Amino acid sequence: MVDTFDIAIVGGGGAGLTAALYAARGMRSTIVFEGNVTGGQIATTDLVENYPGFPEGINGFDLGQNILRQAEKFGARVEYALVDSLTRLNTGSFELVADGNMYRARSVIVTAGADYNKLGVPGEAEFVGKGVSYCATCDAAFFGGQDVIVVGGGDAALDEALFTTRYVKSVTIVHRRDTLRASGILQDRAKANPAISFLLDTTVERIEGDGGVERVVLKNVRTGELSERKTAAVFIFIGQTPNSHLLKGMVELDAGGHAMVDLSMKTCVPGLFVAGDLRTQAARQLISAAGDGATAAISAEHYLQALG
Amino acid sequence: MVDTFDIAIVGGGGAGLTAALYAARGMRSTIVFEGNVTGGQIATTDLVENYPGFPEGINGFDLGQNILRQAEKFGARVEYALVDSLTRLNTGSFELVADGNMYRARSVIVTAGADYNKLGVPGEAEFVGKGVSYCATCDAAFFGGQDVIVVGGGDAALDEALFTTRYVKSVTIVHRRDTLRASGILQDRAKANPAISFLLDTTVERIEGDGGVERVVLKNVRTGELSERKTAAVFIFIGQTPNSHLLKGMVELDAGGHAMVDLSMKTCVPGLFVAGDLRTQAARQLISAAGDGATAAISAEHYLQALG
Repeated sequence: MVDTFDIAIVGGGGAGLTAALYAARGMRSTIVFEGNVTGGQIATTDLVENYPGFPEGINGFDLGQNILRQAEKFGARVEYALVDSLTRLNTGSFELVADGNMYRARSVIVTAGADYNKLGVPGEAEFVGKGVSYCATCDAAFFGGQDVIVVGGGDAALDEALFTTRYVKSVTIVHRRDTLRASGILQDRAKANPAISFLLDTTVERIEGDGGVERVVLKNVRTGELSERKTAAVFIFIGQTPNSHLLKGMVELDAGGHAMVDLSMKTCVPGLFVAGDLRTQAARQLISAAGDGATAAISAEHYLQALG
Repeated sequence: MVDTFDIAIVGGGGAGLTAALYAARGMRSTIVFEGNVTGGQIATTDLVENYPGFPEGINGFDLGQNILRQAEKFGARVEYALVDSLTRLNTGSFELVADGNMYRARSVIVTAGADYNKLGVPGEAEFVGKGVSYCATCDAAFFGGQDVIVVGGGDAALDEALFTTRYVKSVTIVHRRDTLRASGILQDRAKANPAISFLLDTTVERIEGDGGVERVVLKNVRTGELSERKTAAVFIFIGQTPNSHLLKGMVELDAGGHAMVDLSMKTCVPGLFVAGDLRTQAARQLISAAGDGATAAISAEHYLQALG
């Protein structure tokens, strides 16, 4: 006998857990699938300063666990399993296979997020939240008056570099090619900013420090020469990969692979909703993802109510 | 000399204060105008159970003050004044007049919210948060197993009445006319629900109790006859009025008077953003409004960065 839930949620980050909290508090049988750690990207963040309600900030892992406990308190069930497939049945219900087990749900909210692309160099994973960051909006404020490195050459890298200059003493943009990919206007603005300098044809080989980022080892890709450079932080903006594989062929995706939704988090498939960083035009902030999650759960509730 | 801010925010509820927190933390000069009490609609809520991060719930006023402190900590200035007019100048900047004083801003986020329409009867204002509610999603869970009244005859009233039956023993729908305005399918579903009964041609004259709602005095509008009825709660769904007067003629509004925005909270006017309950298709939840506020502030940041 296959378990059937009112609402299945794929992903246990801020969007998914908030959707679960709303769905379960709305007395809907609710299951959340999380293949990794609940809490999502903030789970690895030491101090979250910009989640409204905590004026002194809060540890990211603790905040994630708080939301998890809140969802479970209202009856949401959390299954630590990776969803391998999502299928819409002829009945209009959905079938999910997670770690080989089959589940059914009358509606589904996918909040599988997007992963920031990684450099894949020694020290990167170790120092996430301790100087390695993929979000200037979140973390630039922690490096006031210091020298930092931004890695990347696209619009996001230059945009975030310009933003970061409002806090730090200097930004060095490290890019592996000899030209930037970013739009001309952003390049002009970055080049005109006295706090920004460029190291082209250069890659980051290692990130080093004692408990936090202190320096990087750089490589000139033309000469092969290695050099060391002091830095308080390494901001990495080399793209992101939305976890949209479950949605392919079902839901329209934007150019970057994020799901198209409307302001209610509805996709084009009845009963299927997408919230958080996986949706198009996401602000990539916990508070916005959580807000989306609540909106999606309310939309799912309306959908189920209309089904009768 | 007129003060010029990077970002002016109209309204100090969850959306406005979160926008202010992000804008100020982004090192933008930020002013928030609030004509009443900061915190918005949750400020009058005893216990907020569904704001993610507080598994035991939190008092609504306290939560609002926490967000206020957080925004002020990052440098947002809060002005307790009502904005009377908002004008876009030929320069692309905005001029605001608040309590007779003039301000200028390079971008504006309007989060003026929407007011639930009130019955305007004795006891209504007194018992808000103590049995009088305008949001079943928020408050129905507090009345498990009890008898409650829903006032209204439109889609929202029947939708919320159906939702409420998942918690309470009975729902009596009180409507002043002899027919309901709601769609046929919702009427059918409500009439088929054994927990729902109807009192048509009936108005609520008074809401009474000792510290919380205990009973209502009803009036039959045909006979004029008064009667008393015990109830644990009065849910009122007689529409809402978005505070969109500042936007009229500037921004496209939907049929209900809410501002049209895209997923980034942009309006059709460059530099002008709308977030929270005032925007179209809002979920009308604090977490969603706060998420919108962050999204709007990030959009404003991008706008200002492009201005140079």
